[in-house]
Amino acid sequence: MFAELIELGENARRAAVKLRTLNTDTKNRALLAIAEAILERQGEILAANALDLEAGRAAGVSAPLMERLELNPARLQGIAADVRSVAALPDPVGEVFDARALPNGLRIHKRRVPLGVIGVIYESRPNVTVDIATLCLKSGNAAILRGGKEAAHSNRALAEAVRAGCVAAGVPAEAVQLVQSQDRALVKDMLTASQYIDMIIPRGGQALQQFAVENATIPVITGGIGICHAYVDAGADPQKAVPIIFNGKVQRPTVCNALDVLLIHAAVAGELLPPIAADLARAKVELRCDPRALAILQGHPLARPAGPEDFDTEFLALVLAVKVVDSLDEALMHIHQHSTHHSDVIITENYTHAMRFLDEVDSAAVFVNASTRFNDGAQFGLGAEVAISTQRLHARGPMALRELTTYKWVVMGDGQIRP
Amino acid sequence: MFAELIELGENARRAAVKLRTLNTDTKNRALLAIAEAILERQGEILAANALDLEAGRAAGVSAPLMERLELNPARLQGIAADVRSVAALPDPVGEVFDARALPNGLRIHKRRVPLGVIGVIYESRPNVTVDIATLCLKSGNAAILRGGKEAAHSNRALAEAVRAGCVAAGVPAEAVQLVQSQDRALVKDMLTASQYIDMIIPRGGQALQQFAVENATIPVITGGIGICHAYVDAGADPQKAVPIIFNGKVQRPTVCNALDVLLIHAAVAGELLPPIAADLARAKVELRCDPRALAILQGHPLARPAGPEDFDTEFLALVLAVKVVDSLDEALMHIHQHSTHHSDVIITENYTHAMRFLDEVDSAAVFVNASTRFNDGAQFGLGAEVAISTQRLHARGPMALRELTTYKWVVMGDGQIRP
Repeated sequence: MFAELIELGENARRAAVKLRTLNTDTKNRALLAIAEAILERQGEILAANALDLEAGRAAGVSAPLMERLELNPARLQGIAADVRSVAALPDPVGEVFDARALPNGLRIHKRRVPLGVIGVIYESRPNVTVDIATLCLKSGNAAILRGGKEAAHSNRALAEAVRAGCVAAGVPAEAVQLVQSQDRALVKDMLTASQYIDMIIPRGGQALQQFAVENATIPVITGGIGICHAYVDAGADPQKAVPIIFNGKVQRPTVCNALDVLLIHAAVAGELLPPIAADLARAKVELRCDPRALAILQGHPLARPAGPEDFDTEFLALVLAVKVVDSLDEALMHIHQHSTHHSDVIITENYTHAMRFLDEVDSAAVFVNASTRFNDGAQFGLGAEVAISTQRLHARGPMALRELTTYKWVVMGDGQIRP
Repeated sequence: MFAELIELGENARRAAVKLRTLNTDTKNRALLAIAEAILERQGEILAANALDLEAGRAAGVSAPLMERLELNPARLQGIAADVRSVAALPDPVGEVFDARALPNGLRIHKRRVPLGVIGVIYESRPNVTVDIATLCLKSGNAAILRGGKEAAHSNRALAEAVRAGCVAAGVPAEAVQLVQSQDRALVKDMLTASQYIDMIIPRGGQALQQFAVENATIPVITGGIGICHAYVDAGADPQKAVPIIFNGKVQRPTVCNALDVLLIHAAVAGELLPPIAADLARAKVELRCDPRALAILQGHPLARPAGPEDFDTEFLALVLAVKVVDSLDEALMHIHQHSTHHSDVIITENYTHAMRFLDEVDSAAVFVNASTRFNDGAQFGLGAEVAISTQRLHARGPMALRELTTYKWVVMGDGQIRP
């Protein structure tokens, strides 16, 4: 194992023992100090970011990636404001639930406690460093962060601000640590360092997640990848269908809860596909159509035949696959066969169809008559999130503060023994 | 991948789709039919068991293992009664929680749903086949069971009874399937068959669990291994300390929540160790003592010096390691360094010490003045359990019906889009 990882791991374990007993006031003081440190160190942080931007330009990094990499005073204000909002969220640690007295007089409950040490492997955007650091801190966890090399200078400057904020509030400086080495072999070491790390979150594309799942001996939270379906039922209200499809596809096409596939019932396809397509044309959305949809959209400038992969692709772009189906059953079967279990919506006025869709679609979030873009920690009222889980154990959907905790059983007796 | 596993996996996935929408009445009818089938098929089951016992004798299997392997009419009655008690437990599937209305009018909640397909790898005792089958069925999951070869005939006969009960109640026959091959390479295939299996529970010793963790790409629930500590504080009530230690060590020494280590404060060791040791002597408990404890127990026929491994051993036998400590802090540090995070108890009358122990000991269950033997699904009022988890994600402590489920977010709108 890399010497750097051993050192970070030992520091993190020591820090975690202190972090789990910190009260909420102390953690919030550290968060407010972090927000302050980020603003105070604006000069250093932007200078570090300039180095990353320069290296990116030299390496010919694409314009959208450069855009995500860039920090400026307004963005730092935004990052500091996000940190303050984490301070304002309720602390999940110490929450007591499932409390009861047993017939033998034992009083038992579950108490929410931090997970311990969380390892996060992520790419490009430097604000992620602060997001994850502050959510881990608020939930009483130590964090070991391994960011991408494109943002290495920015991440280091931001991590220094986080460290300064922690120290100012008397929180261990090693609460949040950044991996310095950019050696990819260290990532593999992280995935098996179960003596140091309790949970791994790979935030990135399919390749990173697959690599983590295949190599980890530590539990991995996968997610953030979604082929999201909208099914427009016979008798759907066009006033709902048209804006929900537009919003799902266009409001932020590069994220995991954006729509990828439109299924539409044959009974309404002739009437509804043209206005849906016309609306999507405002944003230049390309439509990849099955033969029946293509026949209806003949002449639409952005409609073309779907290829064999188009119903199994997360587009992350202004592209939508479109298919006409003959029944709710066919729509359910299509989703069952192509799902990534992220977010799916039915647009319907039929009560029984709505209930069946909610029952039978096996996704992290299932919707009736609302945009899939709502599958998000902040939108669900949970505050910020570290990821949207599409795996089944521990947590599904937005991973916010509570999802960064576990529980212990507390049993208080006065001498009880087992008969 | 083994052809057998592909077939079982495809069957299980198909069955799981039906199982997750079954209502409680149907599942309970199947459970009662299984209990009946086990009693009706007593002749076949005992004949199959006789083959296993014969093979065991021929192979020179140890007496305690033979005892665990044996079925008889009374044990079958017990197994059938356990199945009926699972039918009587509340169904976790469909439970709604964290329900609320958002400011934009969206109504959201979490709904408890089955995990999907659960793979269990276990050893020797044939009743485990029925325990796990029925808990999976009640929680709406399909199960793929891989039992040990010593119990192969018994497991097959019991699985046939489970299948007959399912079919009688209109539940898919493939709800519970037994792996027939005894090829160990198939176990390795199971651990990576994520297209077929959602969670793996390895029920067995350290070697099996380590093998599962290292080879699985599917989430693994580890547990069932515990080095459990009792700390007797200065000023502890002897009326509580003596029976709690005896019960923890002796009531069932072969299980994971039995005591392994006694830590005792120097201020009371001289007064309390002798009566504790005298009580344990009734059950011939061997004491492996650190030098100070040994000095106090000079002349006790079962006290001997502790070896270097004795504070890191799960004894599963009538052996207890004993150490004198000078403070609560030293006890907490010892537990921190040697813990397997299972079950630990403080025996004290000091309020602040009790609270610190509950706060600072990081185990699945922490106790004040009660036997660690209570860390058990039935004792905690949860009904039967498939395992006692000592890992941190998803569930800690007893894994009962609820712990075999996950949740989905349900979002009901009337046209909401994200601004």
